[in-house]
Amino acid sequence: MLGARCLLRALRSCSSAPCPRHTPSAKLSVRDALGAQNTSGERVKVQGWIRSVRSQKEVLFLHINDGSSLESLQVVADSSFDSKELAFGSSVEVQGQLVKSPSKRQNVELKAEKIEVVGNCDAKAFPFKYKERHPLEYLRQYPHLRCRTNVLGSILRVRSEATAAIHSFFKDSGFVHIHTPIITSNDCEGAGELFQVEPSSKVKVPEENFFNVPAFLTVSGQLHLEVMSGAFTQVFTFGPTFRAENSQSRRHLAEFYMVEAEISFVESLQDLMQVMERLFKTATMLVLSNCPEDVELCHRFIAPGQKDRLEHMLKNNFLIISYTEAVEILKQASQNFTFTPEWGVDLHTEHEKFLVKHCGNIPVFVVNYPLALKPFYMRDNEDGPQHTVAAVDLLVPGVGELFGGSLREERYHFLEQRLARYLDLRRFGSVPHGGFGMGFERYLQCILGIDNIKDVIPFPRFTHSCLL
Amino acid sequence: MLGARCLLRALRSCSSAPCPRHTPSAKLSVRDALGAQNTSGERVKVQGWIRSVRSQKEVLFLHINDGSSLESLQVVADSSFDSKELAFGSSVEVQGQLVKSPSKRQNVELKAEKIEVVGNCDAKAFPFKYKERHPLEYLRQYPHLRCRTNVLGSILRVRSEATAAIHSFFKDSGFVHIHTPIITSNDCEGAGELFQVEPSSKVKVPEENFFNVPAFLTVSGQLHLEVMSGAFTQVFTFGPTFRAENSQSRRHLAEFYMVEAEISFVESLQDLMQVMERLFKTATMLVLSNCPEDVELCHRFIAPGQKDRLEHMLKNNFLIISYTEAVEILKQASQNFTFTPEWGVDLHTEHEKFLVKHCGNIPVFVVNYPLALKPFYMRDNEDGPQHTVAAVDLLVPGVGELFGGSLREERYHFLEQRLARYLDLRRFGSVPHGGFGMGFERYLQCILGIDNIKDVIPFPRFTHSCLL
Repeated sequence: MLGARCLLRALRSCSSAPCPRHTPSAKLSVRDALGAQNTSGERVKVQGWIRSVRSQKEVLFLHINDGSSLESLQVVADSSFDSKELAFGSSVEVQGQLVKSPSKRQNVELKAEKIEVVGNCDAKAFPFKYKERHPLEYLRQYPHLRCRTNVLGSILRVRSEATAAIHSFFKDSGFVHIHTPIITSNDCEGAGELFQVEPSSKVKVPEENFFNVPAFLTVSGQLHLEVMSGAFTQVFTFGPTFRAENSQSRRHLAEFYMVEAEISFVESLQDLMQVMERLFKTATMLVLSNCPEDVELCHRFIAPGQKDRLEHMLKNNFLIISYTEAVEILKQASQNFTFTPEWGVDLHTEHEKFLVKHCGNIPVFVVNYPLALKPFYMRDNEDGPQHTVAAVDLLVPGVGELFGGSLREERYHFLEQRLARYLDLRRFGSVPHGGFGMGFERYLQCILGIDNIKDVIPFPRFTHSCLL
Repeated sequence: MLGARCLLRALRSCSSAPCPRHTPSAKLSVRDALGAQNTSGERVKVQGWIRSVRSQKEVLFLHINDGSSLESLQVVADSSFDSKELAFGSSVEVQGQLVKSPSKRQNVELKAEKIEVVGNCDAKAFPFKYKERHPLEYLRQYPHLRCRTNVLGSILRVRSEATAAIHSFFKDSGFVHIHTPIITSNDCEGAGELFQVEPSSKVKVPEENFFNVPAFLTVSGQLHLEVMSGAFTQVFTFGPTFRAENSQSRRHLAEFYMVEAEISFVESLQDLMQVMERLFKTATMLVLSNCPEDVELCHRFIAPGQKDRLEHMLKNNFLIISYTEAVEILKQASQNFTFTPEWGVDLHTEHEKFLVKHCGNIPVFVVNYPLALKPFYMRDNEDGPQHTVAAVDLLVPGVGELFGGSLREERYHFLEQRLARYLDLRRFGSVPHGGFGMGFERYLQCILGIDNIKDVIPFPRFTHSCLL
């Protein structure tokens, strides 16, 4: 019988003990193989999915992709390797030598010594055809497979890079990252349709509400960031937000991502606008330098001209106009709008797009909106009859509103009628502060030129659709 | 009357035009001021909250904190600056010269030339008292203010650093980040209580379900990561997950964060365990080097001895035992368990904690669990009468289960009875793959030694509680 001591001796250590496993030394991602400096016949193992097969008399060419890059690795094999199983979509493991490619189309290719089919692909049933460029609407029907196409692969790699770039921008600028809650008993904006949350089987919770109070999915992390900016001065969050809007438009989702920041001791909208502009430009430059091929694919095949438009945005200083000036510009426009522009009425997307064009397709901040249009927490400009608040929206080409922000009302007596907790924040060392939010999907649409918001999020949720 | 052209000239450019604003050149965070190399009288402006006031005959000492670091900046002022308004909790802006401090307690101090009270603090009403160390349970009553204490400030800065460290670990290892959906029509684990999601006002949506199907808050992003690992090979997600468990325990939350990874072409549990161990160690080393003071505060005042325990974990290789071995160890233990250990029954927290102790307080992987205990998607070990699957849990001191993972069943005929979409993933280039999840709050508890999960998340949600 085994004693505990004896068993302890039987413990295996994970990192160092010899274990029955493959030596991973020769395993390379496609990206690393393509970038390999040593092409003097280094023996490697590459795994991935077949993107193309070309069979010649004596040679077989395969292109292998593993999603680590847009580009595939060319595998060159003796035609004796040819088999029906080496088909478009199959997964394979190839061992061989990395060598300089004689062709100009690539630097490196893999001379196969062994090819193993890991998983077959029923190419007839596979919804995407070899060498065919499928429209984005078609791909949307296959949320579980569309990521295997070039275009969705590129968009989602850009999304991943942009996420990292935004985190690093804020970290480098001294912001503390906060996980603001998803379930909340607040309704931050007081507007928009909320999703309510309840346990699915009510049997086990005898109370009426699981949380004692009605609970909703967050529409903004602003209130929670305000709490935190009172401790950390500069904070940000980057997470999902929700609107139960019954909309099938290409601009709206029920679940989308927002980047939100809150900064204490800001003195003017200028302070906020500088952070917004730096965030947009810094993150975009990082994305462009980290995955240029992926961005280029979008710019070339989906949004021709977008490359120049984006460069134009990056090299110019963003502009600033007041809401009042914006309404004047719209009133004098020769264009006929569906909604007549008028002071005191919200700007519509058609107005926003006109304003951006009018400004030479440079992103433009619109500042100082009528008090009556904006939520209670925005700072009163106390500017007489045309009563405005220190709010700002950033409008960008193609998308319209990308950022929204404001100075927050920090003065106790302006807020006295409001929530007790919200007031509490102003009792204990109140400071002027402000913040903003940026729609992350709209940001991706803006830099890539993608028309439909459903194509820049891995699994879109909207009315009548919650696939997977 | 203004023409559009004239208005265009009125546009102000954000970055370069002279704007009526403060020059930000001299503004420093407390952290930057404390680390300043130039202390030969540089003029700076520092903003923050007063943490202490000490008034002497001729000199006034203030400590200012802005949340950028645990340490506060000492401000030295002429006693003529003294005023009732300079009280604990008030927010101030101090201008003056950064000089070398004569005291050994700090390198740098700020010689005040101007002190402006930005916001008063009603110290009598403020729930935290000067110089008092409040218990964590007491602080929990003030979700909107507790971040202003030293201890919550440190914990939340560590949380922010750990978040960044985890993102950077995966990015450096070539993983693509995926935003897996929060709202889903799946129930990944088939277990646990789900939250259901519905629009709060049903009037506007005539259909029975907003999404046409019942929709829930995610309990795991695994299925969606499996989709993506079929395109990108290595993927991860880091987001909120939800359980509607009616639990008031110090181990459970209704909303918590999970780090989940999925890797294609893994050949054994060893491959997964190596990633888990590297993730734990790399992220922890980064946190320790990026915010040593914050970690030390927890180790010194909340969890004495935790520093040594953590070092012990970091310098040893994690161990591996099988589930069968684990049950043998438990059966031979002299300890009386509430739940009698038995092959075929799940391990309880008391068992997990015993096993870790038995292994010398080194984190231990338990592998190969009975098939009957685990969900359908785990890979069958086909090992005869003691039928097990390739599942792995990582148990760590103080916390118990920190990671859970498995090889996934990639073989079509093993899964044939299952979901059509899940099957579809196996029809088109199926590959052996595996993945794991790590509870992020438990990770923070593990490295900091914090006993209650509610203290490592900014806004805890659990039964009967959804404050703010």
